[in-house]
Amino acid sequence: MKEYFPEIKEIKYEGPESKNVMAFKYYNKDEVIGGKPMREHLKFAMSYWHTLKAQGLDMFGGDTMDRAWNRYDDALEQAKARADAGFEFMQKIGMDYFCFHDRDIINEAMTLKETNRLLDEIVDHLEGLMKKTGIKLLWGTTNAFSHPRFLHGGATAPNADVFAYAAAQVKKAMEITKRLGGENYVLWGGREGYETLLNTKSDLEYDNFARFLQMVVDYKEKIGFEGQLLIEPKPKEPTKHQYDFDTATVLGFLRKYNLDKHYKMNIEANHATLAGHTFQHELNLARINNVMGSIDANQGDMLLGWDTDQFPTNIYDAVLAMYEVIKNNGLGKGGLNFDAKVRRGSFEDKDLFLAYIAGMDTFAKGLTIAYRLYEDKVFEDFQDKRYESYKTGIGKDIVEGKVGFEELAEYVENLAEIKNTSGRQEMLESILNSYILEAK
Amino acid sequence: MKEYFPEIKEIKYEGPESKNVMAFKYYNKDEVIGGKPMREHLKFAMSYWHTLKAQGLDMFGGDTMDRAWNRYDDALEQAKARADAGFEFMQKIGMDYFCFHDRDIINEAMTLKETNRLLDEIVDHLEGLMKKTGIKLLWGTTNAFSHPRFLHGGATAPNADVFAYAAAQVKKAMEITKRLGGENYVLWGGREGYETLLNTKSDLEYDNFARFLQMVVDYKEKIGFEGQLLIEPKPKEPTKHQYDFDTATVLGFLRKYNLDKHYKMNIEANHATLAGHTFQHELNLARINNVMGSIDANQGDMLLGWDTDQFPTNIYDAVLAMYEVIKNNGLGKGGLNFDAKVRRGSFEDKDLFLAYIAGMDTFAKGLTIAYRLYEDKVFEDFQDKRYESYKTGIGKDIVEGKVGFEELAEYVENLAEIKNTSGRQEMLESILNSYILEAK
Amino acid sequence: MKEYFPEIKEIKYEGPESKNVMAFKYYNKDEVIGGKPMREHLKFAMSYWHTLKAQGLDMFGGDTMDRAWNRYDDALEQAKARADAGFEFMQKIGMDYFCFHDRDIINEAMTLKETNRLLDEIVDHLEGLMKKTGIKLLWGTTNAFSHPRFLHGGATAPNADVFAYAAAQVKKAMEITKRLGGENYVLWGGREGYETLLNTKSDLEYDNFARFLQMVVDYKEKIGFEGQLLIEPKPKEPTKHQYDFDTATVLGFLRKYNLDKHYKMNIEANHATLAGHTFQHELNLARINNVMGSIDANQGDMLLGWDTDQFPTNIYDAVLAMYEVIKNNGLGKGGLNFDAKVRRGSFEDKDLFLAYIAGMDTFAKGLTIAYRLYEDKVFEDFQDKRYESYKTGIGKDIVEGKVGFEELAEYVENLAEIKNTSGRQEMLESILNSYILEAK
Amino acid sequence: MKEYFPEIKEIKYEGPESKNVMAFKYYNKDEVIGGKPMREHLKFAMSYWHTLKAQGLDMFGGDTMDRAWNRYDDALEQAKARADAGFEFMQKIGMDYFCFHDRDIINEAMTLKETNRLLDEIVDHLEGLMKKTGIKLLWGTTNAFSHPRFLHGGATAPNADVFAYAAAQVKKAMEITKRLGGENYVLWGGREGYETLLNTKSDLEYDNFARFLQMVVDYKEKIGFEGQLLIEPKPKEPTKHQYDFDTATVLGFLRKYNLDKHYKMNIEANHATLAGHTFQHELNLARINNVMGSIDANQGDMLLGWDTDQFPTNIYDAVLAMYEVIKNNGLGKGGLNFDAKVRRGSFEDKDLFLAYIAGMDTFAKGLTIAYRLYEDKVFEDFQDKRYESYKTGIGKDIVEGKVGFEELAEYVENLAEIKNTSGRQEMLESILNSYILEAK
Repeated sequence: MKEYFPEIKEIKYEGPESKNVMAFKYYNKDEVIGGKPMREHLKFAMSYWHTLKAQGLDMFGGDTMDRAWNRYDDALEQAKARADAGFEFMQKIGMDYFCFHDRDIINEAMTLKETNRLLDEIVDHLEGLMKKTGIKLLWGTTNAFSHPRFLHGGATAPNADVFAYAAAQVKKAMEITKRLGGENYVLWGGREGYETLLNTKSDLEYDNFARFLQMVVDYKEKIGFEGQLLIEPKPKEPTKHQYDFDTATVLGFLRKYNLDKHYKMNIEANHATLAGHTFQHELNLARINNVMGSIDANQGDMLLGWDTDQFPTNIYDAVLAMYEVIKNNGLGKGGLNFDAKVRRGSFEDKDLFLAYIAGMDTFAKGLTIAYRLYEDKVFEDFQDKRYESYKTGIGKDIVEGKVGFEELAEYVENLAEIKNTSGRQEMLESILNSYILEAK
Repeated sequence: MKEYFPEIKEIKYEGPESKNVMAFKYYNKDEVIGGKPMREHLKFAMSYWHTLKAQGLDMFGGDTMDRAWNRYDDALEQAKARADAGFEFMQKIGMDYFCFHDRDIINEAMTLKETNRLLDEIVDHLEGLMKKTGIKLLWGTTNAFSHPRFLHGGATAPNADVFAYAAAQVKKAMEITKRLGGENYVLWGGREGYETLLNTKSDLEYDNFARFLQMVVDYKEKIGFEGQLLIEPKPKEPTKHQYDFDTATVLGFLRKYNLDKHYKMNIEANHATLAGHTFQHELNLARINNVMGSIDANQGDMLLGWDTDQFPTNIYDAVLAMYEVIKNNGLGKGGLNFDAKVRRGSFEDKDLFLAYIAGMDTFAKGLTIAYRLYEDKVFEDFQDKRYESYKTGIGKDIVEGKVGFEELAEYVENLAEIKNTSGRQEMLESILNSYILEAK
Repeated sequence: MKEYFPEIKEIKYEGPESKNVMAFKYYNKDEVIGGKPMREHLKFAMSYWHTLKAQGLDMFGGDTMDRAWNRYDDALEQAKARADAGFEFMQKIGMDYFCFHDRDIINEAMTLKETNRLLDEIVDHLEGLMKKTGIKLLWGTTNAFSHPRFLHGGATAPNADVFAYAAAQVKKAMEITKRLGGENYVLWGGREGYETLLNTKSDLEYDNFARFLQMVVDYKEKIGFEGQLLIEPKPKEPTKHQYDFDTATVLGFLRKYNLDKHYKMNIEANHATLAGHTFQHELNLARINNVMGSIDANQGDMLLGWDTDQFPTNIYDAVLAMYEVIKNNGLGKGGLNFDAKVRRGSFEDKDLFLAYIAGMDTFAKGLTIAYRLYEDKVFEDFQDKRYESYKTGIGKDIVEGKVGFEELAEYVENLAEIKNTSGRQEMLESILNSYILEAK
Repeated sequence: MKEYFPEIKEIKYEGPESKNVMAFKYYNKDEVIGGKPMREHLKFAMSYWHTLKAQGLDMFGGDTMDRAWNRYDDALEQAKARADAGFEFMQKIGMDYFCFHDRDIINEAMTLKETNRLLDEIVDHLEGLMKKTGIKLLWGTTNAFSHPRFLHGGATAPNADVFAYAAAQVKKAMEITKRLGGENYVLWGGREGYETLLNTKSDLEYDNFARFLQMVVDYKEKIGFEGQLLIEPKPKEPTKHQYDFDTATVLGFLRKYNLDKHYKMNIEANHATLAGHTFQHELNLARINNVMGSIDANQGDMLLGWDTDQFPTNIYDAVLAMYEVIKNNGLGKGGLNFDAKVRRGSFEDKDLFLAYIAGMDTFAKGLTIAYRLYEDKVFEDFQDKRYESYKTGIGKDIVEGKVGFEELAEYVENLAEIKNTSGRQEMLESILNSYILEAK
């Protein structure tokens, strides 16, 4: 088999003192934290699209990355080369999972039938690679947004044929995902949204979207797919108003159509911030609503208004994200997919390794620090004390539903002055810093 | 009775050709549009707080407006003067409704009991003014966010005593609203939200918020209040993460706690844009979910990141908002409350009139234009044609739930090329322009 | 010659009452406003790139527009077809000018030499078309940002060879622009900026940028190019920190390197708003600094954080922009280039016409309204009165430099209370509305 | 003398292992880094306004902090108490400097004359405290924006009397600053800017602003003030368009009016991000233009669109800021002023200490890490290699001005393929992380 990264050996853990940029400083996959090895806490996954397919195109210029595995004319040959390169990459970086869109693993052919036939061939190939390497599929999904036919959306297109086409595509993608043992199937809205209400029947589009998601549920049962169904919230890109704006929006939508039992969330850091929230906010909201499904680990640039999909290197975000994951008792079937791309100027193959090392080390360190915060009950103890009034007396009565406005008004009439306490934000931020800076 | 605006006479409609800045050019209250006079379509309301109480304070400087009606030492005397000035203003500007927070109509006294006693006195006074003038109460609400006791929130405070206090306050405000014949009662989250998750039990806060809203529902039934209950979505101010971020978020929250039958929305333009949406988006979403309750008519500055609460003068926003209102068959019990304040530099009493004239004329013109767009079926016809594939064949089957993934995949296999059509955004924007520019 | 828009006839002015979407309602090119026909006030130009070259690609999907003139394999043949289509388009829409980047008119060949040879050929062709139609070149520019060699910038690249390449390219582009009688030559920073200071010597990059701009000045003199040199400010895209952030930034930069006598600004609406300013702000600043060079007429979406380059349909922006242009005594050698692209969903050829009609009508109406505001001295009179204290007494002394802190302190000591007057923002916005809504 | 923080002892350095939240973990003032003690590198200063005067007011609610030193009716008594509390605070926290606006140290009286008389009295008092404690004045400034007279600006007001008043006030503030040995005098634009161009003569306002700044320069010479003059850039608050938008804007303005030799910058983190830049960007730009004057150390919230003035706890920002300071050879007369306020919910006196500890520890650690990065030449070496092509051959010729477009075009013609190298952003971010996480 052709080697695509001949100059790169397996990336090893060398510890924090290492000056070797091609080694892990924090990600020591078998190191046990809280009874579980790092690799199980984190379940890192390679994103097929950003890692293997994208080559640096942006709105102001063409590809800067000329990947050897994409230099094939024949679709299937290219697809196999891409897969081989991907598995070589994952083995060398020490990654246990991958994620893909149907159109990442094979380019679209002239007809759906032909595309599906090629898909079956490449899936055979992937299956072989998975068996050989032990690498698993975290999730599959469908790309129903790049092809021009989806220019006005897929499930929410004004054209019923497009809805049908998207359905046929998701059907096949679910089958493939099942066949490859995928632990989840993700739906990202792609172009499900609208540009202007002047030309849009939003009510019909929402209803159709729900019909589509119900069909997904039905087909899951039909084929006995055991993975989780996930929706990935994102606001404002590519359409101006994406229907899956954020976690709260998706929850409201699912509840309206009685779909909430069937879907969890795939939370992405960069999507959170584009929606005006912190990454932790979205994870926390998912957790307390019992829909934390999986994570797209990346980061946005807070000064830029689009999805930059950068490799996550901010330690604060990693710590607070892992803290929510730990409080959730882990991600279950979910994992941490690096929906991240190397910068356009980081165009050498080596940068792929450097970027993944950066992201994996950041999350590994984030896990370690978060676990210590959790064990030491740093925030829990503070919060327990802060909310203790709901454990007894009138607070308990409120929580237990024993009182209404009349009882509370009476209670207040006899109440002396109310005594609040400081929220201590600065102190807590300082303590968080000391955990980060003194992490052992 | 003392006259507070002695130099200002009743503001009259003088038509579009008038050069008199102290006259209406478009708002002709008894002019009939689609079978209903303008005043019924629009149900304009004066906001007590911005109009009568606020005096130009901002974060970098003190009051610039020295209103005669606020120059009283005695709380009740001041409250009466404020009410008198407000009713004089409404009569002169020709406004049929007003809205207030409990703490707008009387300043808070040392104890809740005393405040409530004063409230009763000022409500007597207001009742008298309402009887005399025929002016009605669009809605009442509670200010449970300005007093230091609410520094960490009201219903979502970490302190049960604060929850109780907020409850007692809302109870009284609901009673007053009922007594004054208020058509709606509004809940705006105020400080219901959080600054940092480091010190916050978000799950308990959400649950308590729901408990509080259930108590509101219970007390409404108890006292037989016939008005609508409204929630006013707002993101990111004053707390960083407000729980009522936007309409979609609130709908999801209400559905979770089975409260969705009891509440509609009070949609504010400036809150919409702060959440990353257009005003029309929020109104449209409320309409298709049957929760369009009332409107806070103002506008934000798209280059500034806070709630500027400017008087609405953008004709595009007014047209598209009124378009949604017309499609909703009107606002029912709701109305158009000017939750808008004169700029700090527009500090003269006369500016209050000039600003209200600006806002009322903009919405009156917006109504006229929107009605013509509606009557001419400009957008409807375009949309009907755009979505016609859902009226027959496979589209109809999708809508009627007759097909699933298997049938759709089979359909696609036999499908020739998919033919999309242009969304014509530029053309539609141009047509909208011609309706605005050639409005008769 | 092949006809590329066979179904479309010349777009005519039919006046505001027309319901024909394929006609102008406001742009009546020979109509005289203030002594000058509309076409001279506005000097509309077609953007070669957005109109002829771009086909709907975005970061989430491929081309949706399949233009007949781009379906050629041979570079020169394609280039000629593109030019023919462009001139047919301009003739049918009635446009007097166009603008291009060197790489718009011919695709880059294997060597610079070969590219330059092809450029000469296509310039011959363009020259012929210009002669035949009377259409003129508003400005030329260089694309030194799309090719991968410019991945780290052109004049500010860390690689001297890239600087040299950019220089060679601009040299040729200036020669071509001169040959075609271009009235201006534009420099848009493209990738002149940085992504992260971790890898950037910003001081060297700024100095090199200035060296490059000095070479442009030198070469202009050398070849006797009589057009204006323009810089186009833009923040944050494609690099995170573009050096030409906005007009104020560019002015400061030019002054530092004594280049300010040589350059004016090409102001773009969408770039203004991305920088946190209004379009009018940028035009006003350029005007009062005597550097209003030319205009890129488009509009951004205030809810989206990237350069959407939409066709300008907002009448407020058009009125206020034209107001600044009128106050500037017109644009001189500059004009109004539609740096705007049809939405990805507006993929039919016809949409090009509809979009240009939308933009041209908006600016034509904007001109008419702005001229009336100017003639009526609506804002001037208000402002003259507002600032009248600088015409006499202490104000005059300040302006004339006759007083310093000591004199002013003495003056204040004897000063009675200071009397300010309202800024009347709401009234002025209302008057602006009445000019827009009642435009004749 | 009354003790205002009786329960708080002097804050000591206890090292990174300490769990005492009332101790420094990193700020060890006499620890020597690169030949200079921390206290000299950092020159921390207390902001009088946020620390002593502000009490938690925001736009949605009143004061939450009831400081003992503000509970006085008599202006002078209150002023003295405030000063005493401030000096007690600085001594206990171990701070060497403070900063003030003229109106922070004494409330404004009925006349300027009386205010100035009171100012002299309180300055006597401050002088005594400074002598006793050894604490110094980093800078003084004027508040010419809070009083209603400045509602339309100070130096840029449309009213010449207001200009005169601002002049008289700055004159006195400069005298006081000189008398107290202030090392700098700061001008922050306050309300120098505009809300709408409809009512604004921007050209006159800019000119007047320059006239004012020239008077400052003249008066500085006149009285022999030896400190630095600083301008503090800020965009969009309180006016929509502040004239001192950012460093680049101010530099351009100063150069236009030949004032650039006289002013340096006071860079604030939160102002940088509101202008769309990073904190490091602003510091870097100031450094390479030789105008890095002083720093306002705080941080904004990247999800909020206003000046939150939070205590700086982000270690990335602190490291990169101190890195620029080190490259600048320190701040000279400047220092690090905590223009930061405790959150409204952190209302206890103790929070002041906790917040300052958080900020001081963050910057102390930032200094240590930045110094190691600097010593190890981590970024310098990478950059030197990246830009090495400008050291020899054609690159050297470019830098030395030996070549123009013709020579460069000729050079390119003979050039083989251009070879770029990766910018390695991800690797550099990862290395930065390792310095932060492994800081000793």
